[in-house]
Amino acid sequence: MSFTITPLKNGLENVQGFFCDATNVGMRPNPDQGDLAFIRSEIPCDIASVFTSNRFQAAPIKHYQRYGKDFQTNFILMNAKNANAMTGKAGIEDIDRILEALGEHTDVLNPVMSSTGVIGYRLPVDKIISGFEKLDFYAKNSDKTARAIMTTDSFKKELAYEVTLESGESFTVAAICKGAGMINPAMATMLCFIITDADIPKEEMYPLLKTGADYSFNRISVDGDTSTNDTVMLMTNRQSAVYRQDAFKAVLDKIMFELAMMILKDGEGATKVVAFNVKGAINDEEAQKAATALSNSLLVKTALFGEDPNWGRIASTIGASGIECDEERLTIYYDDLLIYSDQYRELDKEREERAYEIMKQEQFTITCDLGLGEGSFTAYGCDLSYDYVKINAEYRT
Amino acid sequence: MSFTITPLKNGLENVQGFFCDATNVGMRPNPDQGDLAFIRSEIPCDIASVFTSNRFQAAPIKHYQRYGKDFQTNFILMNAKNANAMTGKAGIEDIDRILEALGEHTDVLNPVMSSTGVIGYRLPVDKIISGFEKLDFYAKNSDKTARAIMTTDSFKKELAYEVTLESGESFTVAAICKGAGMINPAMATMLCFIITDADIPKEEMYPLLKTGADYSFNRISVDGDTSTNDTVMLMTNRQSAVYRQDAFKAVLDKIMFELAMMILKDGEGATKVVAFNVKGAINDEEAQKAATALSNSLLVKTALFGEDPNWGRIASTIGASGIECDEERLTIYYDDLLIYSDQYRELDKEREERAYEIMKQEQFTITCDLGLGEGSFTAYGCDLSYDYVKINAEYRT
Repeated sequence: MSFTITPLKNGLENVQGFFCDATNVGMRPNPDQGDLAFIRSEIPCDIASVFTSNRFQAAPIKHYQRYGKDFQTNFILMNAKNANAMTGKAGIEDIDRILEALGEHTDVLNPVMSSTGVIGYRLPVDKIISGFEKLDFYAKNSDKTARAIMTTDSFKKELAYEVTLESGESFTVAAICKGAGMINPAMATMLCFIITDADIPKEEMYPLLKTGADYSFNRISVDGDTSTNDTVMLMTNRQSAVYRQDAFKAVLDKIMFELAMMILKDGEGATKVVAFNVKGAINDEEAQKAATALSNSLLVKTALFGEDPNWGRIASTIGASGIECDEERLTIYYDDLLIYSDQYRELDKEREERAYEIMKQEQFTITCDLGLGEGSFTAYGCDLSYDYVKINAEYRT
Repeated sequence: MSFTITPLKNGLENVQGFFCDATNVGMRPNPDQGDLAFIRSEIPCDIASVFTSNRFQAAPIKHYQRYGKDFQTNFILMNAKNANAMTGKAGIEDIDRILEALGEHTDVLNPVMSSTGVIGYRLPVDKIISGFEKLDFYAKNSDKTARAIMTTDSFKKELAYEVTLESGESFTVAAICKGAGMINPAMATMLCFIITDADIPKEEMYPLLKTGADYSFNRISVDGDTSTNDTVMLMTNRQSAVYRQDAFKAVLDKIMFELAMMILKDGEGATKVVAFNVKGAINDEEAQKAATALSNSLLVKTALFGEDPNWGRIASTIGASGIECDEERLTIYYDDLLIYSDQYRELDKEREERAYEIMKQEQFTITCDLGLGEGSFTAYGCDLSYDYVKINAEYRT
């Protein structure tokens, strides 16, 4: 049974029954870019969410969890510049005040909030409430909404697809996302909001979202190290009355993977994206350990930035990752160029030059075959440049 | 029972019966700095060593281990610029050839080798052998020897102490060391050679060395992530005939801790050294996890460089480290300034200004009290500057 996935222009406005808009309430100095935004559905939606594993979950996440496991909502309120994290009970009370005031401007059912920005400061509650007058609750401004949640992002992240089944029936999925941190150690907040009119059963929402996140956002982050605010939400109003699991899973995975790659490409100061493909490990878990270590190694990252085909740093990182490995069985490839094996330990000039060519690309793959078993995992990383230091030394101040 | 520890000038030269020298054999471009060096004892010594936990141990470490658990030696040969790591069996055979040739120039008993430099290249065996003629096996050139093992180090690392017991008897301990990597993730090789004339029983050597390394070099590195070559060696000729365990332990710990701090201070591009003191954890292991995570966090490191008192990054790193913690019980101090507690979540201007003053120092302490138990651990880290990226993007090429 086949289906077609067609990219659509613009983002959230493609999904029937949803509205979105943004405004500037003075949290962000540039008045042309929003700092307060929303996604609203005209009818109640089911929602599923994957949150940070950080022990210090931000106030909006704690607030969300107060609704219990199964609830319907019609409203997500978002803000930038302030994470509302490490703000204690007061941080949750601030959300209550804000959402109560929101109810005076539009019909809300179990509204949720999502925040990104600096940790440790109370939300400017009055500013936010005063912004409600400036929002158009019947607008479809995906562009403005996607821009409003950006922090150090250098471009907005927005996608939409229509999925057409063989029968000719179709449903739509759209998403906006923010995140541009080094990702490793994954503490720059990432937020992702996915909306759909697909008739997905409630009980399939969380498992599909979680699996998709594990294959995308969690491949660009390290061992559960996440920020206080990381959030992926999926909301459906079911208005298409159409669903097929394989088609929905395909488009959901595609959206999350593409957004994850956009985050990586937008990595602070990053000049290239590298796939670290570890195979031949004794099991998948060990392959994941090694691949994640490679994508996080400062020495590997700086070698990537310097375009230095120094495979010794790759080998040393694998050796230090605590997994089973053997230098006589290991092989390392940059794209399809064999760069290390028991027989080829020293780079000759020709292979070194080919390695330079490969490393100059904006995107390439480093494959490490441990030669021991069937375990494999691919993690994605970016290089570490001067600009990363600049952005992160100066962020906040 | 008291004892006195007195610092001595001129490093290794202070220990009776030991000789050391260095020469340049053309591995290092600057002919004024050695790249081949040795430490030699006129009588056989007991030796104990702590090596890297990296699975890909370098050839000199594998060669050393072939001597078995208990052996005596009178000679350590060292070289810079080439790690002799990931060089397979050929790498070990190269050492055999080199050490065999060495025997034609001086009396050697179970000589060992120690290397640092780039991974994946065979040693220039003939160059090294030709260098033996230029070494003076009766010299006491600690300065030259300490300089010869430097790689990206910006200053040589050399220490010596005389320990005098109440009885007036004394023994001497001296050491040289190299290492200047980011240390986190600890893959810049560190080498440390400690020599003494103390009459330490053979069976006490390894335990004391290991404990000392755990409290020093292993506090500036991450979860067993180490380079292929990391080595700490302790060698005694017992010529003083004097020993007392508490006094020896005190000076050994002192030497290793001071050298570890020198490495950190010489962290590539580092402008400041920070002690991350985690206490109040449910146990020491959890405290270590959190302290190590703090000393390794890129976001914390760049905030330190930017002198930004952004305690949110400290809190988020603790939350992401996977340990038991509670935002209402946590308190964070910069030196003695309370910067976060349940009662003081937002920095007022006065405290923010005091925090800036503290962060401007070359050395300060960040204390995180989790308020849960008795577990504590102190890890040491440095900031991440533009120069780190520069040094590591350009190293090797």
